[in-house]
Amino acid sequence: MEEILRAAKKLAIQTALQAGQEAKNRFENLNSILVKDDFGDMVTEVDHLAEEIIVNGISRQFPDHVIDSEEAGHNGKTSDWVWVVDPLDGTNNYAIGMPLYSTTLALLYRGKPVLGVVYEPMVDRLFVAMAERGAYCNNVRIQVKKNEKIQRSSIGWIQGHAVQNEARAVKLRHHLDVNVRRMMRLWAPTLQWCMLAKGDLDGIVLYNSESSDLYAGILLVQEAGGIVIDYAGNPFEGGSEAEHYLIACHPEHKEYFMELVRQGLDNG
Amino acid sequence: MEEILRAAKKLAIQTALQAGQEAKNRFENLNSILVKDDFGDMVTEVDHLAEEIIVNGISRQFPDHVIDSEEAGHNGKTSDWVWVVDPLDGTNNYAIGMPLYSTTLALLYRGKPVLGVVYEPMVDRLFVAMAERGAYCNNVRIQVKKNEKIQRSSIGWIQGHAVQNEARAVKLRHHLDVNVRRMMRLWAPTLQWCMLAKGDLDGIVLYNSESSDLYAGILLVQEAGGIVIDYAGNPFEGGSEAEHYLIACHPEHKEYFMELVRQGLDNG
Repeated sequence: MEEILRAAKKLAIQTALQAGQEAKNRFENLNSILVKDDFGDMVTEVDHLAEEIIVNGISRQFPDHVIDSEEAGHNGKTSDWVWVVDPLDGTNNYAIGMPLYSTTLALLYRGKPVLGVVYEPMVDRLFVAMAERGAYCNNVRIQVKKNEKIQRSSIGWIQGHAVQNEARAVKLRHHLDVNVRRMMRLWAPTLQWCMLAKGDLDGIVLYNSESSDLYAGILLVQEAGGIVIDYAGNPFEGGSEAEHYLIACHPEHKEYFMELVRQGLDNG
Repeated sequence: MEEILRAAKKLAIQTALQAGQEAKNRFENLNSILVKDDFGDMVTEVDHLAEEIIVNGISRQFPDHVIDSEEAGHNGKTSDWVWVVDPLDGTNNYAIGMPLYSTTLALLYRGKPVLGVVYEPMVDRLFVAMAERGAYCNNVRIQVKKNEKIQRSSIGWIQGHAVQNEARAVKLRHHLDVNVRRMMRLWAPTLQWCMLAKGDLDGIVLYNSESSDLYAGILLVQEAGGIVIDYAGNPFEGGSEAEHYLIACHPEHKEYFMELVRQGLDNG
């Protein structure tokens, strides 16, 4: 197990870097493309290219592992080891030339995230977390920060693709929007988890998001000393079929965010 | 006049690039800083450094021109030529390691913007607009885009520092939020103007924002074929003392956005 983990970490970093670099090279070319109608196709191409690099890398080294990737889907294997791949988190940003996107991999062992790797090519930031071994950004240990002025917090809002303008989601989102200093909605969920893990956000409120996007980010935050709980305060247990309604923050801000969310759901 | 403009353009580009590069160099160092409490000071330092590069450059070449800069304020001169400098637009993003910021200069002649220069160092994008001579990104002409599916628009929301959670602003903001596909609020107003100018946003709704931030962005959008109007449809006239409530978009989307804003202000 130890050996697999070590090899998996090396492979995950290598493929995330390579896929991210390829995405970045193409991103720079976007600047010179004038016919915007071709953008959609180009972004899809980059998505597939990044995925190919990562999925091929895993398949070669761990032919028996399950791979579940955003575009290519499930590889049909059965194993205790499951790789979850999001080759280009922040596709919509990428498509409009906004430098907020990442390549993301997570490895689960018997349903539990044991490895999370995120690479942000535009700023050359590599995030790595391993279960019970901490979270790192460019080899420097990172930590979720306690905010002495939590009433003036910066938070990230993440919602699932299916949510749209569901009344309950809108109510909560708008309540948060007027009760925090800054509510970010970056359309790049993984990057928001990274920002929380390195102390640049105070919390994340997540409304029914797909769990395939979540594992790397959640492990990073947990290993950076943060908690991930549902709206009732129960720790996140994983489980890919469930709908997730989560809060992530520093342990000492648990009550604060639970109350804020409760108000947002009760209000009006 | 022609000669002044040519020299001003050259100088604006040169100082914007230099200031942006210095900001970028320091941004990369932020990754390795662990004590976040020092961030505020560091960002202020970068702000001042970028400003110094730009303001000194202008003063040397145009000693008689007015310079109005975000940190240093007004230089006390009187002239038909007024430079408006925002050395680091997106300070808050910069401070938390988000690669969304720019250096920005505008030149006004008798109150009218004649030159706007924006440099986005993280993606090496230089935007230049001159009155009646078009808008360019990295020397390629850019244009505000017409969206055939305007009901699924992406817009930017910009509000002034003083607005906060003023009830009318919140009502409008939340109405827009649920009636467009994506409402961005990047805390880097100039970049949103640039995105509109190059066809990556469909519109901007601006609620009582400071005009000192606006000139470069407005000129870029106008020169890229967009319109800038108040909520009643009157063209933007400038004037640094007024409160600005503006819509910017492709001319063919004028009615659509005016109606959307009207609904947002009437509602509830």
